[in-house]
Amino acid sequence: MHIRSVSRKFAILVVIWAFAALLLGTAAQAQAQDPLPSWNDGSAKQAILDFVQATTDKASPKFVPPEARIATFDQDGTLWVSHPMYTQVVYCLERVPAVVKAKPALAKVEPFKTVLSGNREAMAKLSMKDLEKILVATLTGMTVDEFRAEVKKWLTTAKDPRWHRPYTDLTYLPMIELMQYLRANGYKTFIVTGGGQDFVRVYADKVYGIPPEQVVGTAGDTKYGYDKRGKPILTKEPKLLLNDDKAGKPEGIHLIIGRRPQAAFGNSGGDRQMLEYTGAGDGARLMMLVLHDDSKREYAYGPAEGLPNTKVGTFNQALYDEAKKKGWVIISMKNDWKKIFA
Amino acid sequence: MHIRSVSRKFAILVVIWAFAALLLGTAAQAQAQDPLPSWNDGSAKQAILDFVQATTDKASPKFVPPEARIATFDQDGTLWVSHPMYTQVVYCLERVPAVVKAKPALAKVEPFKTVLSGNREAMAKLSMKDLEKILVATLTGMTVDEFRAEVKKWLTTAKDPRWHRPYTDLTYLPMIELMQYLRANGYKTFIVTGGGQDFVRVYADKVYGIPPEQVVGTAGDTKYGYDKRGKPILTKEPKLLLNDDKAGKPEGIHLIIGRRPQAAFGNSGGDRQMLEYTGAGDGARLMMLVLHDDSKREYAYGPAEGLPNTKVGTFNQALYDEAKKKGWVIISMKNDWKKIFA
Repeated sequence: MHIRSVSRKFAILVVIWAFAALLLGTAAQAQAQDPLPSWNDGSAKQAILDFVQATTDKASPKFVPPEARIATFDQDGTLWVSHPMYTQVVYCLERVPAVVKAKPALAKVEPFKTVLSGNREAMAKLSMKDLEKILVATLTGMTVDEFRAEVKKWLTTAKDPRWHRPYTDLTYLPMIELMQYLRANGYKTFIVTGGGQDFVRVYADKVYGIPPEQVVGTAGDTKYGYDKRGKPILTKEPKLLLNDDKAGKPEGIHLIIGRRPQAAFGNSGGDRQMLEYTGAGDGARLMMLVLHDDSKREYAYGPAEGLPNTKVGTFNQALYDEAKKKGWVIISMKNDWKKIFA
Repeated sequence: MHIRSVSRKFAILVVIWAFAALLLGTAAQAQAQDPLPSWNDGSAKQAILDFVQATTDKASPKFVPPEARIATFDQDGTLWVSHPMYTQVVYCLERVPAVVKAKPALAKVEPFKTVLSGNREAMAKLSMKDLEKILVATLTGMTVDEFRAEVKKWLTTAKDPRWHRPYTDLTYLPMIELMQYLRANGYKTFIVTGGGQDFVRVYADKVYGIPPEQVVGTAGDTKYGYDKRGKPILTKEPKLLLNDDKAGKPEGIHLIIGRRPQAAFGNSGGDRQMLEYTGAGDGARLMMLVLHDDSKREYAYGPAEGLPNTKVGTFNQALYDEAKKKGWVIISMKNDWKKIFA
């Protein structure tokens, strides 16, 4: 009511300030309106936005209460590069020299002899049985604390041969944004990986913002005991408890999470059952399949076959057809992603 | 600056209002200062307050970052009454008639014949092997959704024979307050129970404020498949994956949570390894043992033996001695708890 008494100059300043604030506000709003800046506009991005809108708006018939907002993500090929070899397999192969140093007799025994030779062609021909021997030798027998320290150390030095960057740098930026967007809307994000649960838990918090208790993965047994000084320890045993791949994914989800996801994201035949199980729930569900079709920026091998084809990505036509039939949303890396890496 | 121009009456009102607000504020603060109103002052309550203060104050040398604030609770005898029989065992026994109705041939086979007779003395004499047969018949063979519905329904009608109240009413109020207090201070609370993971997950959210994914328990395998209409289902299999008792507790914690708890609460021999494992970590750790010493308001049988003594609580002297030796805090139900039930 005192506005008439202030000087004209001041009134003009007020108008300019208000106008600037309006402009700034609009800009901030525009930015807030795009929570997925690395995604190109298109059906994949729109499906995500629609799903979040429908499940978080209390007035929506598809509203999902916050406690039921569970989203599960496969890791290899869905959240980071897994081609031409799963990172954890690289880890196991690179751990072999240390294992042989501790047990020199292994140097003359297959498959360790071949791995030590460094002959990549010979290594590529190792059988699943050989690979299993390497996994058992490099992933079990130590305490869980020792294993964590070994993986942590390896991750700081190991580099992807194509990009010459640490493996943990090769996560897909659009998927990181997607996880952040879901979390900002009350979703609890879980990794559900065929990879080792203990392996992924080492870096998941730092790399994906996902704490250890939200990582479900292939898990071996552990054995409680005491070290020489009587201190309680857990030792990693060569006994498989959960093979978190294919049918093992919904089984693992039930074991560790205990409820059906509202949204699930995968890329390979190993993710089929997780996507089916998610889609079989009531109400709004979002199932998405990352399609590797970008030979220039990453790789082009389609939705992957999944294990046991650990080395070469091969197109999985049946999975692609099921996705189309069931209304799962295909994410084309080439067309849907503006940027692939950070 | 206009205060001098208002009437004297109004000024008095303002003073009274301010004084009232001050009083109310102080009262509210006093209440806020006691987050554990059902606990008597004493060493147990003080140990909890000191632990939370030390681990949440950034200036404290014992500060624990929020993501590492994990607290694990045994259920039976720690969070609710488990005497004279574990609630889940009661559930299994009371499910027998329905199981026999579906498979009439079982009526003439032991141990089902004895359970159907209703002869409590005979039932008390059933062996562990008999009990296992009952558990398999009542806890497996159905889908996880069917099982959840059955347990949910049972909980609404079943009543404890002594208090004539639903079992879910017989939780210990001081422990509920403790969980709330820890959560208010950034702790993630988990149940780590020898009981069935799927069973406890049915009511844990409603009863304890703990979501399914934060319940670790004894778990059987599930099998992914499809029903007649092709809908994906998970069926409960008679194969034990995790025996979440004794050494199985730290192993289960590693499998489902993936990190060492900062605080752990138990009452029986089944919790010993969980408490030891928690105590073996660095920095501030809190280990507490509920002592059943209140024959009037609940039961007096000391720290319990744990399984397989499912029916009769017997004092576990070795556990009590270890607790004293290692500085675990004893919670005397008789002396430390003002109220036992809500």
